[in-house]
Amino acid sequence: MVERTLHGYYRSTAAYRVRIALLLKGLSVTHVPVHLRKGEQHGEAYRALNPLALVPWFSEEGVALGQSLAIIEYLEEAHPTPSLLPSNLAARAYAREIACIIACDIHPVGNLRVLGKLSADYRESGEGRAAWNRHWMEAGFTAIEARLRKTAGRFAVGDEPGLADLCIVPQLYNARRFGLDLTPYPGLCRVDEAAHSLPAFINAAPENQSDFEKG
Amino acid sequence: MVERTLHGYYRSTAAYRVRIALLLKGLSVTHVPVHLRKGEQHGEAYRALNPLALVPWFSEEGVALGQSLAIIEYLEEAHPTPSLLPSNLAARAYAREIACIIACDIHPVGNLRVLGKLSADYRESGEGRAAWNRHWMEAGFTAIEARLRKTAGRFAVGDEPGLADLCIVPQLYNARRFGLDLTPYPGLCRVDEAAHSLPAFINAAPENQSDFEKG
Repeated sequence: MVERTLHGYYRSTAAYRVRIALLLKGLSVTHVPVHLRKGEQHGEAYRALNPLALVPWFSEEGVALGQSLAIIEYLEEAHPTPSLLPSNLAARAYAREIACIIACDIHPVGNLRVLGKLSADYRESGEGRAAWNRHWMEAGFTAIEARLRKTAGRFAVGDEPGLADLCIVPQLYNARRFGLDLTPYPGLCRVDEAAHSLPAFINAAPENQSDFEKG
Repeated sequence: MVERTLHGYYRSTAAYRVRIALLLKGLSVTHVPVHLRKGEQHGEAYRALNPLALVPWFSEEGVALGQSLAIIEYLEEAHPTPSLLPSNLAARAYAREIACIIACDIHPVGNLRVLGKLSADYRESGEGRAAWNRHWMEAGFTAIEARLRKTAGRFAVGDEPGLADLCIVPQLYNARRFGLDLTPYPGLCRVDEAAHSLPAFINAAPENQSDFEKG
């Protein structure tokens, strides 16, 4: 039995991505909740694991690392079947491009630590923080929507679920939480709907995690 | 002769990463400068290519995409030799983790569009913008420094230059530009120094680009 653990938080979209990847690959994992809103990521024990004080943190038999995309690429190489990437080189590139638009240019700019700093440095309000987050989502979603017009089948890149989808679904969850109007993004919404027919995406959802809290 | 173009900007750290990758692989490319400070990325022509209005934008024989890490993974798959990743699975994961710390959790939070929004929304000053950028670099560099203690040889992960190094070197360039004290990061500085002995890193540097401007 392989020892595999994932430190996460039910509504961290980065941890949510890794949960979907593990489920798509049928890999079992022990979930260790880190309560971000209570600041558990800043505790000594967690910082000794991950000095960046972010989730997710993944470990499997001596390999231990953060960064959702690095974890998912590791899973893809260590457990290649089923693959989370198409076989065609260009399609693989577009799947990774969509993943990076979300994981580099949307999520880190609007995540909890940045929103917290806006409040600390500029006394930004809750509504102002939400507007900041929506602003970067709109920019990124517009670009992804254009890409999907060229690459989407049933899922974001072709007809199989994978890397792009497992980034899109958590980000749309976040978009709804922050009140973004999704009408301009029909392609993203179609991917989200198709994904929610699959157990991997359903079981990885925030409301199905042991540390889920209402509200 | 393969048609290959890279839209970039001399001091965009994301474009700088791709320049290094191309040079390490010995791939020729036509550089197309996009003057970010003059707002050329918001022009109709560039937005038709890349709706996100960011650099880099790379194209090669019908494949055309943004996002530096996606471009570099594409280059690695399309032109595997010399490789930009170690062969060992765990080492590959750590190289990608370092790349993601920079490309997800440092650079996008402190790049030009975010700093511009801090000025627009909060009337942030030049010094305040620099402090904001340094704050995220300090958090990320601390985590990378801890990782380097376990993985570094001559370069960030082992003795060959690759993905982690080509992210580190541009980010250290940015760190110096924004006045970050690098004393706490001897591991990062050693990688930077080793890299600067190689033509690929030297030739990709901002001061060696056709669109370079002083100051």
